[in-house]
Amino acid sequence: MNFTSVQDVQDVAALIDEAIELKNDPLAFRHLGRDKTLGLVFLNPSLRTRLSTQKAASNLGMNVMAVNADRDSWAIEFQDGAIMNGTTVEHIRDAAPVIGSYCDIIGVRCFPGLVSREADYDEHVMKQFIRWTGRPFLSLESATLHPLQSLADCITIAEHRPPHRPKVVLAWAPHVKALPQAVANSFSEWMCRLDVEFVISHPPGYELDPGYTGNATVEYNYEKALEGADFVYVKNWSSYSDYGQILSHDPSRMLTEKHLAGAPGAKVMHCLPVRRNVELSDEIADGPRSLLQLQAENRVFAAQAVLKRILQKL
Amino acid sequence: MNFTSVQDVQDVAALIDEAIELKNDPLAFRHLGRDKTLGLVFLNPSLRTRLSTQKAASNLGMNVMAVNADRDSWAIEFQDGAIMNGTTVEHIRDAAPVIGSYCDIIGVRCFPGLVSREADYDEHVMKQFIRWTGRPFLSLESATLHPLQSLADCITIAEHRPPHRPKVVLAWAPHVKALPQAVANSFSEWMCRLDVEFVISHPPGYELDPGYTGNATVEYNYEKALEGADFVYVKNWSSYSDYGQILSHDPSRMLTEKHLAGAPGAKVMHCLPVRRNVELSDEIADGPRSLLQLQAENRVFAAQAVLKRILQKL
Amino acid sequence: MNFTSVQDVQDVAALIDEAIELKNDPLAFRHLGRDKTLGLVFLNPSLRTRLSTQKAASNLGMNVMAVNADRDSWAIEFQDGAIMNGTTVEHIRDAAPVIGSYCDIIGVRCFPGLVSREADYDEHVMKQFIRWTGRPFLSLESATLHPLQSLADCITIAEHRPPHRPKVVLAWAPHVKALPQAVANSFSEWMCRLDVEFVISHPPGYELDPGYTGNATVEYNYEKALEGADFVYVKNWSSYSDYGQILSHDPSRMLTEKHLAGAPGAKVMHCLPVRRNVELSDEIADGPRSLLQLQAENRVFAAQAVLKRILQKL
Repeated sequence: MNFTSVQDVQDVAALIDEAIELKNDPLAFRHLGRDKTLGLVFLNPSLRTRLSTQKAASNLGMNVMAVNADRDSWAIEFQDGAIMNGTTVEHIRDAAPVIGSYCDIIGVRCFPGLVSREADYDEHVMKQFIRWTGRPFLSLESATLHPLQSLADCITIAEHRPPHRPKVVLAWAPHVKALPQAVANSFSEWMCRLDVEFVISHPPGYELDPGYTGNATVEYNYEKALEGADFVYVKNWSSYSDYGQILSHDPSRMLTEKHLAGAPGAKVMHCLPVRRNVELSDEIADGPRSLLQLQAENRVFAAQAVLKRILQKL
Repeated sequence: MNFTSVQDVQDVAALIDEAIELKNDPLAFRHLGRDKTLGLVFLNPSLRTRLSTQKAASNLGMNVMAVNADRDSWAIEFQDGAIMNGTTVEHIRDAAPVIGSYCDIIGVRCFPGLVSREADYDEHVMKQFIRWTGRPFLSLESATLHPLQSLADCITIAEHRPPHRPKVVLAWAPHVKALPQAVANSFSEWMCRLDVEFVISHPPGYELDPGYTGNATVEYNYEKALEGADFVYVKNWSSYSDYGQILSHDPSRMLTEKHLAGAPGAKVMHCLPVRRNVELSDEIADGPRSLLQLQAENRVFAAQAVLKRILQKL
Repeated sequence: MNFTSVQDVQDVAALIDEAIELKNDPLAFRHLGRDKTLGLVFLNPSLRTRLSTQKAASNLGMNVMAVNADRDSWAIEFQDGAIMNGTTVEHIRDAAPVIGSYCDIIGVRCFPGLVSREADYDEHVMKQFIRWTGRPFLSLESATLHPLQSLADCITIAEHRPPHRPKVVLAWAPHVKALPQAVANSFSEWMCRLDVEFVISHPPGYELDPGYTGNATVEYNYEKALEGADFVYVKNWSSYSDYGQILSHDPSRMLTEKHLAGAPGAKVMHCLPVRRNVELSDEIADGPRSLLQLQAENRVFAAQAVLKRILQKL
């Protein structure tokens, strides 16, 4: 069993419920992971994912071994047939099964290069880890998706769900750096599986891969998109069509209270880390609408629900 | 309950006794920390603090999760209201409560910048962690103080206390780099709470913040200061008045056996790491006067006594 | 009890058997390491050694504390009597006993500088750790030897031993960087203790220190060396006589299937990380002859057998 996308989940609602049950009694399955080892491989920095996944594993009684690849260890080669006379020291075909032989479940974080869309969207790095570790695989954010974040987001929405069918808006916001589309793609594909009205708003040129957004409404007019919203998920991403490029720094897309005049009950979400006063204002981040901390807290139970299911099938 | 200074301790002697009891039976409270997580955040390098605090937590049965901020994770912004369009990636207001939600107790190491005395002595970074994690806080050395070191120093002095009221000398020594005043400030405020004669000796211009040194005698004459000393604590610090500057490299302030002609029974202390043959001579470090290793060993029981008290109040 | 070389092992066959027993029942001694702490100090990168030693310790119920020296901690000075007014921050005489006071067993990885043969072959760094920690010492690869790797290699050979006395060939292969002789030295001294025909093949100028190779046959003709081989251990090393230099990039020394025409049953070994298509071809690495992954897997049981023996003598 792998967890790389919402495609790996048959019944999203049941998984959300399972996570909420674990939140109510985090140590209920503390013996499930006894003598099992979770290996975490970070090819990129991590705070929430690192700590929340460790905590989740610990709640389940697992051992955790983490490796910061390229820093603690050796630079990895991912191209098949490479003549390795350059700077990469070890091939994924050799490194991955070694890690697999020491661990029962493998989690990997591998951001996209944002240079070649084909390479990134092929998920070459993640696929190689999955293929060569030979163990159940847990995505800690891949080139195109961040499923543990999205599951935590779904838990958070479930905890604050209004009595009516909610309107959820994914709102592009400016940023100083070119960021992956992973969180936006992932949130979109999970929203398409919930019973919500899902709207995406961004400047022209920031259209996401339709494979993830499905029947979502794209509303370029930001004000109109926000009207009546119950949840506004603020997030920057770089262009998918003009791959990896920054096409806009439009400061009017920084979410402030003023934007939410037509959505008095809207809750605001962000996966963190957030650039304050660039993506959204302090008043939003620190105000009563903010679900930012709750999302981060729910990362533990998202990871724990998925690890529990994997452990139960080992 | 926080532990950031001797001000957080009502009865210093009782805490020292408690630490010595733990040293005699380190696993006596091994069930106290069961299912509790200690989060350690390092904004600076650490050997003794890192390992001794981990060991202390492990003796109490706690889980430990350590993060090397800026390296494993994201560069943190500490200014309120910052427009985050620069190099910092996450605001302390967002990062700290996330760590707080995963951990029961938070330890942070945050050295001073040594540029602005106001900023450093305001302990802005530490205060932000305390404010925003919402958890009991353990200083692993802040901009101005190093209380776990001082507690370990007090344990070491208690173990070697002569029958008379001892004379303790804090002796400035030269160094190649500008160092914080934290160890010196902290040792001073703890000494002011013990029943000892406390003398500080340094070249003019190295006077410490009087808020920490209280009624200590400042004796500029090094020879006179050392006369009859029972404990000589060697340490470099940069200037407090001419903030962060090196005002002297005076090699006659490097402690050698010759200096201790008038203090035949004197024991020598240093918090480590020490620049040998710059701050003190090899003959001192490796000789029978040296308490350096004992101080380091006692770091475990200092941390364990404090963690035990925090756990008992959780 | 230290483990730095085959010299530390009285009965190699018995140690191999013990490791294989542990492989069949890894948790049989899970209570042996209870309340014992293994300290791992890495002065160099590590993947297999880091994870396999952690896993071995965990199988024995030990706590593990790892330090990446120079990164997590302080740059270490190894010269006695040094006037420490340069870039090193802490002397090994101070750092090592501190680590020793927190841990029951110490493992250290310390690669050679490959500049001074005298310094490297004196094992100055390792000896200082052994001397000053005052704890049982486990080499995680030193300047001249890699005994845990060699023990894992011996386990692997034992698992695939043919009915006849096997021919084992240590085959030098090209590489883009100057590498230590440690794996080659170590493999040689362990092979000299097994009942095997041991042949070493390399271009002229790559002769290893005869102190490790004993009565091994050196056969410069690669084809002749490989004839009838049961095990071919591929490995690069830099010159011992022209110390640390690369004397050959001879591509005909990259092991391919063609080389093994005269050794149809030969198994191929390498300690990893391997430069594919430089040291050996993909067809070898991914083919049925390859024992590379098995060697890596056996690292756990090599470490576990050694740690078990050390724990039993504590």
